[in-house]
Amino acid sequence: MKRFAIEFSYDGTNFFGYQGQPNVRTVQGELENALERIFKERIYTQGAGRTDAGVHANGQVAAFNCPIDRLTDKDIKNALNANLPEDIYVKKAWEVDKKFNPRFAAKKRIYHYFISMREKDVFKRNYVWHFRYKLNVDAMRKASSFLEGEHDFSSFKKGNDKKNPVRTIYKIRVLEITNGLILIRVEGRSFLRSMVRNIVGSLVRVGLGQWTPEKIEEILQARSRQEAAGTAPPHGLYLYKVLF
Amino acid sequence: MKRFAIEFSYDGTNFFGYQGQPNVRTVQGELENALERIFKERIYTQGAGRTDAGVHANGQVAAFNCPIDRLTDKDIKNALNANLPEDIYVKKAWEVDKKFNPRFAAKKRIYHYFISMREKDVFKRNYVWHFRYKLNVDAMRKASSFLEGEHDFSSFKKGNDKKNPVRTIYKIRVLEITNGLILIRVEGRSFLRSMVRNIVGSLVRVGLGQWTPEKIEEILQARSRQEAAGTAPPHGLYLYKVLF
Repeated sequence: MKRFAIEFSYDGTNFFGYQGQPNVRTVQGELENALERIFKERIYTQGAGRTDAGVHANGQVAAFNCPIDRLTDKDIKNALNANLPEDIYVKKAWEVDKKFNPRFAAKKRIYHYFISMREKDVFKRNYVWHFRYKLNVDAMRKASSFLEGEHDFSSFKKGNDKKNPVRTIYKIRVLEITNGLILIRVEGRSFLRSMVRNIVGSLVRVGLGQWTPEKIEEILQARSRQEAAGTAPPHGLYLYKVLF
Repeated sequence: MKRFAIEFSYDGTNFFGYQGQPNVRTVQGELENALERIFKERIYTQGAGRTDAGVHANGQVAAFNCPIDRLTDKDIKNALNANLPEDIYVKKAWEVDKKFNPRFAAKKRIYHYFISMREKDVFKRNYVWHFRYKLNVDAMRKASSFLEGEHDFSSFKKGNDKKNPVRTIYKIRVLEITNGLILIRVEGRSFLRSMVRNIVGSLVRVGLGQWTPEKIEEILQARSRQEAAGTAPPHGLYLYKVLF
């Protein structure tokens, strides 16, 4: 039996998140439905990261066992794209080791968050966080530097998350990529739930001048979710790439 | 009583077209619902152009009488944006003559149609026509030149349209604006229903090499809808701008 990995994109707008759950539309659920249509049996998938409702992906990765041995990478890609809904698209498929699990094999995950300071654009309403006030990108960049490296990210976790809060952020970049459009790029091995959106929420407070960049370091040290700002909305966030 | 015009954009994906109709969601219907919430009475609007289901607008224009005299341009813009759904956005409002009707006052309408020859992008699925084959942009440009000027456009009308089929196209531009993304820009005073999408459908046949550019002139001369190709899908089309 062959095992395949796929890299795929999805528009998170009309999904209740990545992870399969009964009675709601999820990315994993649609992926497994497509595999069932192709193979006439239920195929379970393992994904590299769980994205919340409304969060997008350019390069999510999942793996599954393929019950038909003669299928090639290209066959898998084409069969899935013919059977997936319009808001999921498989970019490539490749054969992997029998034990490959993208969740544990991932060495780096890259998230992108987009904030627009331009006038509202109806065509971007589900794809960037429209922010009506001018943000100081240099101050946000300085604030983000305190988050790089290994830290206890309890201040930026989701309230009820019981996992080990120590994570390593390899790199954060805050860039005004075109006039009025900010990209926050965060690279790490793994992240706590809502961690990127919680970081973005606090960086925006710095960008507004309500907090100094150094306040981010204080928040980190406090290890308390109450110290940080609210969670940025999901529709600005993309799981951009997973590296192995 | 003041009369206002507004310029507004909308994402046509979730509308049954521009024109108000009972029991379905239309742009005009949502606009008049928002005006009713603001003024506590039904306000009727006159629009510059009726777009079909799925067709977008960057710069649609409508006009209406305002029952409250003290309101400024900015008040109108802000009140509408506070009361409109997320997929309609008013860019500006300005006072117009009591008799101003954008449908008849329009001197030029500009439509944009986007065709992507790149690999499918889930985030663009409702906003460009993804076309899987390579198109010859130079041949399409040559073909489009036969359509400029005043002609009987019966070959490019919607089947049951009884209106005068003589229209004037001031200008058509066919441009590859970035690698693999084609913009077809069509300028005219007024258009027959589905006319731009019918033109695009035939230009694509030229781009594929199935038809010579000169075939477009033959189709125009034939004055018969059967001669032309099928209608291009609505989601690549934008009412870009209306000039008065």
